[in-house]
Amino acid sequence: MSATRAEPGLGLPSLPARIAEPGEAITMDELRLASRNHAMPLEALRHELTPAGLHYLLIHYDIPEAEPGHWRLRLGGAVDRPVELSLAELRARPRVTHTVTLECAGNGRALLDPRPLSQPWLDGGVGTAEWTGTPLAPLLREAGLDPAAVEVCFTGADHGVERGVEQTYARSLPLAEALREDALLADTMNGAPLPPQHGAPLRLVVPGWYGMAQVKWLTEVTVLTEPFTGFQQVVAYRFKQEAEDPGEPVTRIGPRALMVPPGFPDFMSRVRVCERTAQLLTGRAWSGRPPVTAVEVSTDGGLSWQPAALGPAADTYAWRPWHHPWHPEVPGTYRLMVRASDASGRAQPAGPDWNRQGMGNNGVQVVDVVVR
Amino acid sequence: MSATRAEPGLGLPSLPARIAEPGEAITMDELRLASRNHAMPLEALRHELTPAGLHYLLIHYDIPEAEPGHWRLRLGGAVDRPVELSLAELRARPRVTHTVTLECAGNGRALLDPRPLSQPWLDGGVGTAEWTGTPLAPLLREAGLDPAAVEVCFTGADHGVERGVEQTYARSLPLAEALREDALLADTMNGAPLPPQHGAPLRLVVPGWYGMAQVKWLTEVTVLTEPFTGFQQVVAYRFKQEAEDPGEPVTRIGPRALMVPPGFPDFMSRVRVCERTAQLLTGRAWSGRPPVTAVEVSTDGGLSWQPAALGPAADTYAWRPWHHPWHPEVPGTYRLMVRASDASGRAQPAGPDWNRQGMGNNGVQVVDVVVR
Repeated sequence: MSATRAEPGLGLPSLPARIAEPGEAITMDELRLASRNHAMPLEALRHELTPAGLHYLLIHYDIPEAEPGHWRLRLGGAVDRPVELSLAELRARPRVTHTVTLECAGNGRALLDPRPLSQPWLDGGVGTAEWTGTPLAPLLREAGLDPAAVEVCFTGADHGVERGVEQTYARSLPLAEALREDALLADTMNGAPLPPQHGAPLRLVVPGWYGMAQVKWLTEVTVLTEPFTGFQQVVAYRFKQEAEDPGEPVTRIGPRALMVPPGFPDFMSRVRVCERTAQLLTGRAWSGRPPVTAVEVSTDGGLSWQPAALGPAADTYAWRPWHHPWHPEVPGTYRLMVRASDASGRAQPAGPDWNRQGMGNNGVQVVDVVVR
Repeated sequence: MSATRAEPGLGLPSLPARIAEPGEAITMDELRLASRNHAMPLEALRHELTPAGLHYLLIHYDIPEAEPGHWRLRLGGAVDRPVELSLAELRARPRVTHTVTLECAGNGRALLDPRPLSQPWLDGGVGTAEWTGTPLAPLLREAGLDPAAVEVCFTGADHGVERGVEQTYARSLPLAEALREDALLADTMNGAPLPPQHGAPLRLVVPGWYGMAQVKWLTEVTVLTEPFTGFQQVVAYRFKQEAEDPGEPVTRIGPRALMVPPGFPDFMSRVRVCERTAQLLTGRAWSGRPPVTAVEVSTDGGLSWQPAALGPAADTYAWRPWHHPWHPEVPGTYRLMVRASDASGRAQPAGPDWNRQGMGNNGVQVVDVVVR
């Protein structure tokens, strides 16, 4: 262990957040995170439901060990009747299924310049699954909400240190979001019990929000009469320009379209090779403020854009398929791009909107293709 | 796309293999590979069978699109009666299940110095699954092997470019290995249909060999009367010191033990924090020349070693669990290490055995822990 890790005042092997130096390559710390927290390979965009093991993962600390038979969810805080529920009790309640696209708030971070050092996402920090569980709102209402309640905090079983702060992962939602009919306590993913890495045996799913809100390995639901001030709420998941800036909270997913890279890849560079024949470019597009209303494709590096054909989403907060024909007639290098806009009027920016924690970078995807 | 990618003679976006410069950090090409080809998070060593999505993945090109209903396996070459089989026909044959630990031949590559540039594995390129399918040997015998047969070549559906060579992934086995009773054409992993990333709908599983031999998306089995000379056989998966050196083939998995990192991690550095209490260090050990006969643990950076207690393997080529008590009584930084040896007399080397393609680095795992 490098001596520079130790912070005498903390006694913990943590360092403050850092931005890469100009031209600084990927660090071993970033590689360590990337080897654990994998992206969805973009060819998996062909699946409406991302198969287990291809859905993106972001795990702050370790995957905690869970014994489903002994798991308890404690619901308390500013309620009249705190309650503790076993998995069997939760499963005996009404059940619903929603197909939801989840995306990491840091997706696109490693494409920023300068690059904030954290989990180094390129563009595959996304996936879509069918989540099944019991709605949260009736549980909150049955517990008797304090009229002064403003937020609901969700605590997982994962424990670690981050920038010198020892913590058990926790995030809150505004009360209105926690009371949405489609916010679930999910124990099932794509029809099977949650895999360990997706929060087994129980997680929150709140459609439309970036992944940091979808608390995994859920053990506590706490109703609050003051806004939550935990690390992940007021420090980590913020849009900010300066370290001292309190910033703006990261909330709902921005619009994004991705394409299945056409042709076949070079192993090392992942640059694509295509034949000089008619291609059908395909992909999916999503937003946390649905629906996606338009997807446009450029095959000339952004000089011109054509509308793609959009298919239906499986559910309100699930991605929509799109396709666009392309027939390159001249050999050479082509830069393909795709961009989405949504019902709120938001559109993907041409380039990244830089912020110092690398949040919400939905700059357009670029796929370089050699046509031969 | 960088102009340096183009090789005029090839027309393909490939470059020759390269070794990192002294001190050169991780490249974007390596990050791109790491974000697709994920490792098993080491806390998943707690599972005897690695859950879907936590098993390591190495996919040279793209995951090919497979329509199980139309999939055909062609068995031909130096046989009397070439045959083409549907999945239904394969599934109607005798079925067996083996629990097998698979490991990427490049596991440990990014820990080499200097570092060969390729998929940048740290130490998690491993996983264990129950593979179910039909034995290969009876199929070969029924087809009528040419007495001059020396090898069997396996071809997948994945297609790409590698160091300027366009190819469909293919690897061969010596005839005796292909005729082993435990070599399977597998369509089932941990009791479920193969996930796309593990070779759906059909793959080879040949226990004991590194992952490059376990051909996924299997479409052709070809009996050969001369050794196979494809890229993955004679160029890529070789132990060599110089680029021009033909080198030695990569075959069976070397012995390796890994531990579940104790305590909890720092998010960014992954360095561990432990309490000053009794711990039980646990992990698993395996070899392609089983059984693992000994596992030893050091808690002082390799100055001294103690034997760990070894449990039974689920199957001949599955990893064995081990455990070792540890009670750190003085706060400070500890370097934990673990090493295995096997029935063939092979043992993990203290440091990496360097080779220019970064193959088979089974140097001992190092886990740095801050005890407070």
